[in-house]
Amino acid sequence: MLSNKHFLIQRSARLAYYSSKASRKVPASSADASHEVSNKQQLFITDPISPGSIFFLPNGTKIFNKLVQFMKLQQQYKHGFQEVITPLIYRKSLWEQSGHWDKYKEDMFRVEGHDTSKEEYGLKPMNCPGHCVIFGRFDRSYNELPLRLSDFSPLHRNEASGALSGLTRVRKFHQDDGHIFCTPDQVEEEIAKCLKLVDMCYNKVFPLSPKAQTETYILELSTRPPNYIGDIKVWNHAEDVLKNILNKFGKPWQVNEEDGAFYGPKIDIKVADHSGKYHQVATIQLDFQMPVRFDLKYKDKDNTYKRPIMIHRAVFGSLERFMAMLVDSNSGKWPFWLNPRQAMIIPVNTKKQDQVLACQNLILKLRGEESPDTTEPISLNTFHFNVDLDERPEPIGYRIKDALMKNYSYLIIIGDKEVETGKFAIRTRADRKLEHLTAEEIFSKFCDLEKNYK
Amino acid sequence: MLSNKHFLIQRSARLAYYSSKASRKVPASSADASHEVSNKQQLFITDPISPGSIFFLPNGTKIFNKLVQFMKLQQQYKHGFQEVITPLIYRKSLWEQSGHWDKYKEDMFRVEGHDTSKEEYGLKPMNCPGHCVIFGRFDRSYNELPLRLSDFSPLHRNEASGALSGLTRVRKFHQDDGHIFCTPDQVEEEIAKCLKLVDMCYNKVFPLSPKAQTETYILELSTRPPNYIGDIKVWNHAEDVLKNILNKFGKPWQVNEEDGAFYGPKIDIKVADHSGKYHQVATIQLDFQMPVRFDLKYKDKDNTYKRPIMIHRAVFGSLERFMAMLVDSNSGKWPFWLNPRQAMIIPVNTKKQDQVLACQNLILKLRGEESPDTTEPISLNTFHFNVDLDERPEPIGYRIKDALMKNYSYLIIIGDKEVETGKFAIRTRADRKLEHLTAEEIFSKFCDLEKNYK
Repeated sequence: MLSNKHFLIQRSARLAYYSSKASRKVPASSADASHEVSNKQQLFITDPISPGSIFFLPNGTKIFNKLVQFMKLQQQYKHGFQEVITPLIYRKSLWEQSGHWDKYKEDMFRVEGHDTSKEEYGLKPMNCPGHCVIFGRFDRSYNELPLRLSDFSPLHRNEASGALSGLTRVRKFHQDDGHIFCTPDQVEEEIAKCLKLVDMCYNKVFPLSPKAQTETYILELSTRPPNYIGDIKVWNHAEDVLKNILNKFGKPWQVNEEDGAFYGPKIDIKVADHSGKYHQVATIQLDFQMPVRFDLKYKDKDNTYKRPIMIHRAVFGSLERFMAMLVDSNSGKWPFWLNPRQAMIIPVNTKKQDQVLACQNLILKLRGEESPDTTEPISLNTFHFNVDLDERPEPIGYRIKDALMKNYSYLIIIGDKEVETGKFAIRTRADRKLEHLTAEEIFSKFCDLEKNYK
Repeated sequence: MLSNKHFLIQRSARLAYYSSKASRKVPASSADASHEVSNKQQLFITDPISPGSIFFLPNGTKIFNKLVQFMKLQQQYKHGFQEVITPLIYRKSLWEQSGHWDKYKEDMFRVEGHDTSKEEYGLKPMNCPGHCVIFGRFDRSYNELPLRLSDFSPLHRNEASGALSGLTRVRKFHQDDGHIFCTPDQVEEEIAKCLKLVDMCYNKVFPLSPKAQTETYILELSTRPPNYIGDIKVWNHAEDVLKNILNKFGKPWQVNEEDGAFYGPKIDIKVADHSGKYHQVATIQLDFQMPVRFDLKYKDKDNTYKRPIMIHRAVFGSLERFMAMLVDSNSGKWPFWLNPRQAMIIPVNTKKQDQVLACQNLILKLRGEESPDTTEPISLNTFHFNVDLDERPEPIGYRIKDALMKNYSYLIIIGDKEVETGKFAIRTRADRKLEHLTAEEIFSKFCDLEKNYK
C-alpha cells in the first residue's frame, strides 16, 4: 500500500495519474465541429437530463460499433488480448484499496443502494482495479503471462458541469482499455507490440494528421517526476527499457522531462488536429504500484511467488474523444467503412415502377437484409452496408445534390438504361465520373473497401 | 401523468410492471448448474466487492458477445431495428417523470456527484425513458414510424443481497432491449413481427426445451388487471388485437386472466428447463402510458399531432439469465458456434517438431490470427475460431480425454501420417469416428457451422 505521503502531490499531478490515460481535452473547435457534423448527420445528442453522457443516435452508434469492432479484431487476433466484461459499481473498499476513494473521490460518482448504512459504491472511472480482481482471483503461473485483458466498459468521471462539451468533455465515456500483466523480462516485447498497434492505427487506418509535416503522430517519453515513489534503480531501469524500445522502434521521439506518472514512466502518443496542434490519443504506462496494492503474484519457474508488472494501455483512448478527432479531421466526410451513409440509390424517374423496383432489389442486396417472413436467421460475419433510397418526387439533380451534401460515399443512379442492362451507374462523392457495375460487382467492391478499412 | 391513485397497487404488481420484462428468476438449480459449468469452463466469477455484478471471464465474454452479435444481426437486418447507445445515469427528474423515483426508488441505485446539493441521479434499471428522450427530441412524422430502437446497455436493479445468485439473480444485467414507437394501425404487424423473431430464436436457433412434449415454448396473453388504468374500450381493443395476432400466428396460447401490466396487456413467452418447468424469456408489452408521460407525438398525414403507441419487447430478456438457461439446457456442451472451446488440436508425439509445427500452422489458420509484425490489419467480418493446442508431454489418450472433459466441440489429432498427407484426423466430442480433412476443409466446415448457428 502507498503511504499517505505519496499522495501529497498537487492536484494537477494527481489528475495526470488518474486521467492521463484518457485525457479528454481537445480544443473547443473540435467540440464545435463534432456538434455541427452531428447535427447534419444525426450522430448524437446531449441532454441536460444526463449532463456529459452522450446519446448516440443510430448513425453515431454505427460509427462507434465499427471502431470497437476494428479494435477488438486487432487486439484479439493480432495482439493476444482476451476481452472481459466487468462490473460498473464496486464497494468503497475496492476504491480505498486502489487509492481512488481517498484521493479521487471528488471526481467519482458515489452510488448507494436503498439501505445506505450497509452499502456504498463508486461508479468506476477506470477498469484497472476490476482487472486486478480478475488476475488476483486465480493462482497464476509464469506460463500464463503475459496475460492481456481488454475491456470496453462505460466509465464515469464527474467532470465539472461547466466544462462539458460535445464528445470531447464528457462524464460517461468508453476506452479501448487494456491491461497487460507480465514479468519484468516481458515488458520490452509487450511495449514494442503496443507501439506496433499504435503505428498501424495512426499510420495505416486512421491517418488523422494529413497536415503534419513528417510524422502522422509523435512519441513522447515522460520520465520520473519529482514526486516519484519506489526505488530509483527500478525507475532508471524502466526508463532505459522505454528508451531502448523507442530507439529500436525507429521513429523520432522526444523526452517530456519529469512528466511521468508518479508510479512509473510512460509513452504518450499524440496526433495533430486540422490546425496542426497535437493532442494525446494513445498511452502506454508502466505501473509497479497497482500489483502491490492488490498483492498480485504469480508462481515462477523456481516455484517462488513473484510480483507481476502491469502495463496500462489504450490506443484510441476515449472512444468519444477519438470520434470527435475523426470528425475534426474529416469534417463529416467519413471513409467508406466508417460512413453511416455509405451509398444513396437514386431512381431517375420515381414514377417508373421498374426503376423503383430495381432500386429496391439493389438496396436489399447491399444491406444484406431479409424479410422477417423468411425463417432462416441472418448469418454471422456477413456484410451489411448502410445504403438508402431517395425516391422522393424531386428532380434528379436536386436529389444528387442532397446526397452529396449528406456526404454519402457513393451515389448509385438507376434509369431506364440501367434497368435494361442490369448495370448500375455509380460514382463517388468526390468524382462525377460514372462507372457501370452489376449489383454483384457493387457488393463485391463495397466488401473490398470495408475489408481493407478504406 | 398518472395520478398517485394509479400507483395504489400492491408491491407485487408494481414489481411486475417494472421488472416483468426481464424477470430474472429461475430456480436455484440453474444457478448451481451455471456455477458448476462456469467453474469448469471459466465463464465468469462473482465477488463480494460488487455483489450481483458478473465478472465475465474471456470464455464467458465470448459467449455473451456471440449472443449479442446474433441478436443485433436479426434485429437490424431482418426486423428494422436501429441500435442506440444511451446514458446510464439520469437526473432524478427523469425518473420522477417516468414514475420510477416515486414508486421504484428502493429498487434503484441512487448516484451522486461531488456536490450532492446540486445533482442527484438514478442508475438506470431499464432503457425506456432514455428512448423516450430520443424520440421526443426530434419533430417526428408519421412516415418515420414505426421507429424501432434497440439497446444493449447495462442495467442495474438493487435486488436484496440475500437473493443474489450466479447469473440468475443479479444486480447488473443486460437486455436485448427494444422499443417500437408506432401508430395504432401498426401495432398488429409490429407484434406479429416480434413473434416471428421469438419463434425463430426458440424454434430454430435455441431449442431450449428438448424435453417439452410438443412446443419448444408457450405463449401467454396477460389481460386487464383489476388495477388497470386508462379507457376500458382501448383495453378491449388492445386485447382483441393481441388475440387476433395470436390466432393468426397459429401456435397454441393461453390466457393469464387479469395478469397484464396495469398500463396494457402483454404476451409472455416461456420455455421449459430440463425438469420441464417453464420460465419466462421473451415479452411483448403494449404501453399507452409512457408516451403520455413523456408527451410524445408525431405529425400525422392530416397535419395533426398524434400520440404514438409504445411496444416494449425483449427476446432473450436478460442476457445473463438467458446464458444461465442455456447452461441449464446444455450442461456446458455448447453448440459449436457458441462454444468458447471449439476445437482442440493434439499432436500425437509432442517431441516431433514437424507434428508440433503442423499443429501451430493449423491453429493460426483456424484462429485467423496474424503476427503483430505484419503491418496489415485483421479484416472486418472474418472468421476466428476458438481453437487451442495441447502439446503437454502427456500420453495422447490422456489429452484426448481431457479435451472431451472440457467439452471441446472438435478434436483434431495430428500424427506422422497427417503431417505427410496434409489431411488431419478430426472427430466430434460425441463420436469417435475420424474424418480426414485438409486445413482448408476444416476451416470451411467450421465457417458453415458458425454461419448456420450450429
